[in-house]
Amino acid sequence: MAQAEGKLANGAMRVDFATEPARYRHWSLAVDGEIATLQMDVDEKGGLFEGYELKLNSYDLGVDIELADALERIRFEHPQVRVVLLRSGKPRVFCAGANIRMLAGASHAHKVNFCKFTNETRSAIEDASEGSGIRTICVVTGSCAGGGYELALAADHIILVDDGSSSVSLPELPLLAVLPGTGGLTRVTDKRKVRRDHADVFCSTEEGVKGRRAKDWRLVDEVAPHTKLEAMVAERAVAFAATSDRPREAAGIALAPLDRRAGADSRAYTFVSVDYSRADRTATFTLRAPEAAPPDTLEAMVALGSAFWPLQLARELDDAILDLRLNELDIAAIIFKSEGDGEAVLAYDAFLDAHKDHWLAREIRLKWKRVLKRIDLTSRSLVALVEPGSCFAGTLAEIVFAADRSYMLIGRLEGDNRPPPVLALSAANFGAYPMANGLTRLESRFLGEPDSVGKVRQRIGESLAADAAAELGLVTFALDDIDWEDEIRLFLEERASFSADALTGLEANLRFAGPETMESKIFARLTAWQNWIFQRPNAIGEEGALRLYGTGRKPVFDTRRV
Amino acid sequence: MAQAEGKLANGAMRVDFATEPARYRHWSLAVDGEIATLQMDVDEKGGLFEGYELKLNSYDLGVDIELADALERIRFEHPQVRVVLLRSGKPRVFCAGANIRMLAGASHAHKVNFCKFTNETRSAIEDASEGSGIRTICVVTGSCAGGGYELALAADHIILVDDGSSSVSLPELPLLAVLPGTGGLTRVTDKRKVRRDHADVFCSTEEGVKGRRAKDWRLVDEVAPHTKLEAMVAERAVAFAATSDRPREAAGIALAPLDRRAGADSRAYTFVSVDYSRADRTATFTLRAPEAAPPDTLEAMVALGSAFWPLQLARELDDAILDLRLNELDIAAIIFKSEGDGEAVLAYDAFLDAHKDHWLAREIRLKWKRVLKRIDLTSRSLVALVEPGSCFAGTLAEIVFAADRSYMLIGRLEGDNRPPPVLALSAANFGAYPMANGLTRLESRFLGEPDSVGKVRQRIGESLAADAAAELGLVTFALDDIDWEDEIRLFLEERASFSADALTGLEANLRFAGPETMESKIFARLTAWQNWIFQRPNAIGEEGALRLYGTGRKPVFDTRRV
Repeated sequence: MAQAEGKLANGAMRVDFATEPARYRHWSLAVDGEIATLQMDVDEKGGLFEGYELKLNSYDLGVDIELADALERIRFEHPQVRVVLLRSGKPRVFCAGANIRMLAGASHAHKVNFCKFTNETRSAIEDASEGSGIRTICVVTGSCAGGGYELALAADHIILVDDGSSSVSLPELPLLAVLPGTGGLTRVTDKRKVRRDHADVFCSTEEGVKGRRAKDWRLVDEVAPHTKLEAMVAERAVAFAATSDRPREAAGIALAPLDRRAGADSRAYTFVSVDYSRADRTATFTLRAPEAAPPDTLEAMVALGSAFWPLQLARELDDAILDLRLNELDIAAIIFKSEGDGEAVLAYDAFLDAHKDHWLAREIRLKWKRVLKRIDLTSRSLVALVEPGSCFAGTLAEIVFAADRSYMLIGRLEGDNRPPPVLALSAANFGAYPMANGLTRLESRFLGEPDSVGKVRQRIGESLAADAAAELGLVTFALDDIDWEDEIRLFLEERASFSADALTGLEANLRFAGPETMESKIFARLTAWQNWIFQRPNAIGEEGALRLYGTGRKPVFDTRRV
Repeated sequence: MAQAEGKLANGAMRVDFATEPARYRHWSLAVDGEIATLQMDVDEKGGLFEGYELKLNSYDLGVDIELADALERIRFEHPQVRVVLLRSGKPRVFCAGANIRMLAGASHAHKVNFCKFTNETRSAIEDASEGSGIRTICVVTGSCAGGGYELALAADHIILVDDGSSSVSLPELPLLAVLPGTGGLTRVTDKRKVRRDHADVFCSTEEGVKGRRAKDWRLVDEVAPHTKLEAMVAERAVAFAATSDRPREAAGIALAPLDRRAGADSRAYTFVSVDYSRADRTATFTLRAPEAAPPDTLEAMVALGSAFWPLQLARELDDAILDLRLNELDIAAIIFKSEGDGEAVLAYDAFLDAHKDHWLAREIRLKWKRVLKRIDLTSRSLVALVEPGSCFAGTLAEIVFAADRSYMLIGRLEGDNRPPPVLALSAANFGAYPMANGLTRLESRFLGEPDSVGKVRQRIGESLAADAAAELGLVTFALDDIDWEDEIRLFLEERASFSADALTGLEANLRFAGPETMESKIFARLTAWQNWIFQRPNAIGEEGALRLYGTGRKPVFDTRRV
C-alpha cells in the first residue's frame, strides 16, 4: 500500500493517477492554434508525499502524473496541436530534476516505480512525435539538470538560451552517486549520439555544459542569445508544425473522468473489474467486451468520445495497471480474464482498422499500444485464462500474448453450459501494437519459427478452439476440465512462493526476445543498472551520497569496484 | 586483494589465470585428428577457495579458468581441430552448474567477476565457431543444470541422451532465487529462440525438461537413445567438421607460459608493465612496441610461435587485465600508456592484414578482438595518455578508442626532447576488432557523425599530431604542456572520488552506444538484472534462498514486487 512508501501529503491511502487540467498544481497547458505551451511551474508545497518541498522545479511522481495527463489531453482534446513547447515558468531554472529528498526518503520499490512511470511518460512524448505528428520543442532557460535535461532529451528539438548561465547537465553521478535514471544516458548516446568521451565528461561535470559547447557536443540542437530566443522559438514552431499531419480543423473529444468504485478488495470500472485475492497474492483483471456494435460512422465515434468502447477500456485498464503497480506491491500475479462477445471485439477492431488514418482512430490505437507496453513492463507475473464466456479476440488477444503464460480450456467446465472458449485474431495482432523491441507480440513469440506468424495470419477472424490455438502455438497450455483448476492453482501457488526479485529479473529478460531499440535499452540496460545502484550503500546507505545530499556532510564510499 | 573474497585454497594471495593442460584438475583435453574431446570431470577437492567441495561437476572460477585455457590451446596448439565435443566424465551428471556454496560465501564483487569471466568464456566458444571454424557439440548425459546448461547453450549443437533421466534445466529461480547468470536466459530466447512461455515454464521448473519435450521446445537440437548416442555423436562430428575451414595439415604453436614478475606494486611482463599507485587508486599499464620488424614469411611467424609480438602482447595484456579485475578491487582507473616505435606497430598490423587468411594470423587477430572486448567490459575507468615516446598506432590505437577518455599532448614536455606524440591508424581499426555491439570502436565513437569514419579512414598510416587527432575526433582532449599534468591529475582525483558503483553503471551505459547483439544483451540486460538480484535480501540475506540452500531451511522472502 502507498503508505508504506511514506505518508501521502493529501491524506489519501493510494497514489492516484487520475487528474485533469483544472486540478494541475505544477503544469499549465495553453493551446494557441497548432501550438501548445506546456509550462512547468512546480508548486513547492505540492509534493505527493510529506517530508519534502519541490524547490527549483524539481519533481516527484505527482508532478509527472500531471505531465502524462497533459500529453494525453493534447492527443485527444486538441487534435489540431502540432507542436508542444516545453517551457519553464520559473525565471532562473528550467528544472532541477527529480526531487532528491523525495528519492532519499523513498523505498526502493517507489524509486523503481517512479523511474518506470517517468520513463514511460518520456517514451510517450517520443511516441507522440513518431505516431501522432505531435512535435515537441524544449526551450531551455535557466539551469536544466538531471531529470530536467532528461525531459528535454525526450523532445524533438532542444533550444538552449545562451545567456552565460543557462546550462544542461546530468549531475547524478558526481552529486548523488546514482545514474540519470530516466533514459538520460541512453538518449545521450543513442538519440543525440553524443560522442562517448564527451558524454563521459558531461556526465561527470556537476555544473554541466553551456552555450556553444552544448551545441558542439550535440547536447542541444541550437543556442540562441536571449534577445533572439522568442523569435527563434516561434520560427522553429512553425517549421516543425509544417512536418505534422495532424488535422487542421478537427474538434477534440473530452476525456471524461473515469468512473471508479474502489472496495477493500476490488476496483471496478465500467469495462474493467479488478479483484484482489490477498491471501493468494493475485489480482484478477476482468475486461468486458462492448455491449453495442461499433458506430456506423466516424462522426458517431467522435460523438461517443471517451465513452467509445476501445478508448474507455484502454483508459480503464491503464489506470488499473498503474494503481496496482504503485499501490499493491504485494500482489505477485495478475490473472487476465475477459467476458463478452468476441465477435463484437473484432467488429471494433475492424472499425478502427478501416479508419486508421482518422486522427481519433489513430490515437486510440496508439493508446492501446502504450497500455499494452505498460503491461509488458509490469513487474508481476502475467497469466491469461481463456475460459468459457471469454472474448480474447483481436486487440484483447494481445493480452494473451503479453502474458508470461496462458491457459485455455478444452471444452466446457462441469455444470457450465456456455460454449467452449475460443480465441480469435484480427489484423490488429499483426502490426498495430509493436512492443518496445519493435516487434509485434506474435513476432516476438515466434522468433524461432517465423513461418508461424504467416500461418496464424491466415486464420484471422476464425474462432479458434483450444486444440487449434495450442496447435498454432497461441497459448501455453490447453487443458481439459479435469486438470483446469488444479493446474492453475498449482501454478499460482508456485509463483507466489518464488522470490519476487528473481521473478522480476526473469520476466524482464524472457519478455523481450530479439532486437533492442532505444526504448528497450532504456528499460533494460539502463534501468537494470540504476536499480542495482539504487540498492548499493554508496548511494542509499547511512553514509551514501543520496542520503547525505544537502546535509553538508560528505558521503563515505566503499571504493571497491565490482 | 583476493583474500578478501575468501581464503584461496592453495595458499596464494591472488587468483591466477595462467594454467596449462598438464596442471588441469577438472578438465581433460584429448585430440584425435579433427575432433577434440573436452571432458569435464571436476575434482571435488580442487576448489579455488576454501570452504566448499565441487560436487557433481559443479564449478567455480578455477574450473572455468581451465576451460578458457583449453579453448585457447585448441585455437593455437591444435589448428587441425574442427570440432570440440563437450562431455562429462561423470556417470550420472553432466554438470550441476556454478557451485552454490561458493556463490553463497562469495562477496558481491566476486560473484559479479565470476559471472563476467564465465560469460566471456561462453562468448569465446561462440566466437571460435563464428571466427575460427571450431564447432562445438555438447553431448549431454545425465543432469545438466543451471550453469551446466548455460555451457551447453554456448555450443553449436546440443545432443541430449534420451534415457529417462538425463535432463536440461535452469533451476536458479526456484532453487536459489537468482537468475541463470551466464547468459542462459538470453541464449534461451535469442539463440535457441525458445517460445517465451515455454521459457517461463522451463525456468521455473526445478527438475528441468527431458527427452522429446526438450527437443520440441528447442532446448536441445537432438535426442538420442542411449544405444545410438555414440553413433550419432560421431556422425554429427564429421558433419560439423565438414563445415569448417580450419587447415588440415598445419602444425600448431605452443603457448609458452608467460614470463611474469610480480612486485608489491608492480607486475611486469615482457611487453606489458603494470604499476599500481595505491594512494591514487590507479594502475598504469604500459604496452611496449616490438623491437624487431615483423618476420619476412609466414613460416617465420609460425616459428616464433607465442613469442611473435602481437600474440605475446595480447596474452600479457589479457592476463594483466584479468589479474587486476579479480585481485585489485580498489583500483579505480587504468591509465594506458605505450612506448616504442609506432611504425613498427603498423608494420605488424600490415603483416597480419596481408596474411589474415592464414590460420595463425586469424587466431591472433581474434585474440586481440577478445582482449579488447575484455577491456571494454572492465569495470574501471579507462584513460589513455598519448605522450612523447608512445606508439598508439593501429591495433594499439584501439585502446585509445576503448578508453572512457583520452588525453594527447600538444608538442613536447619541458625538459623532454623526444618528438611530440603522434597517433596513427591502420586497416585494423576499421573492422578487425568489432565490439560486443557489432560495431568497430570508431563506428561506435562516430555514431552521430558516420562520415567521420570515412574521413579518418583516409588518414590510415599518417602520423597524426595532437591537433590533427583532436580535429578528427580521435582523442578527447589535446593539451599543451602547461595544462597536461594538472588536468590529468584533477581528472584522476575526481574519478577516485566518485562512487565506484555509479561509475560502473555509467561506463556500462556510455561504452555501448547503438545496436545490441545477443552478446551485448547478455552483458547488459541480463547481467545488470543479475547484479541487482545478487544484492537483494531474497537471495543473499540471512534468510535468502542462496544462503539457506542445502540447510534444509526454507527461505523467507520479502514478497513485495519492485
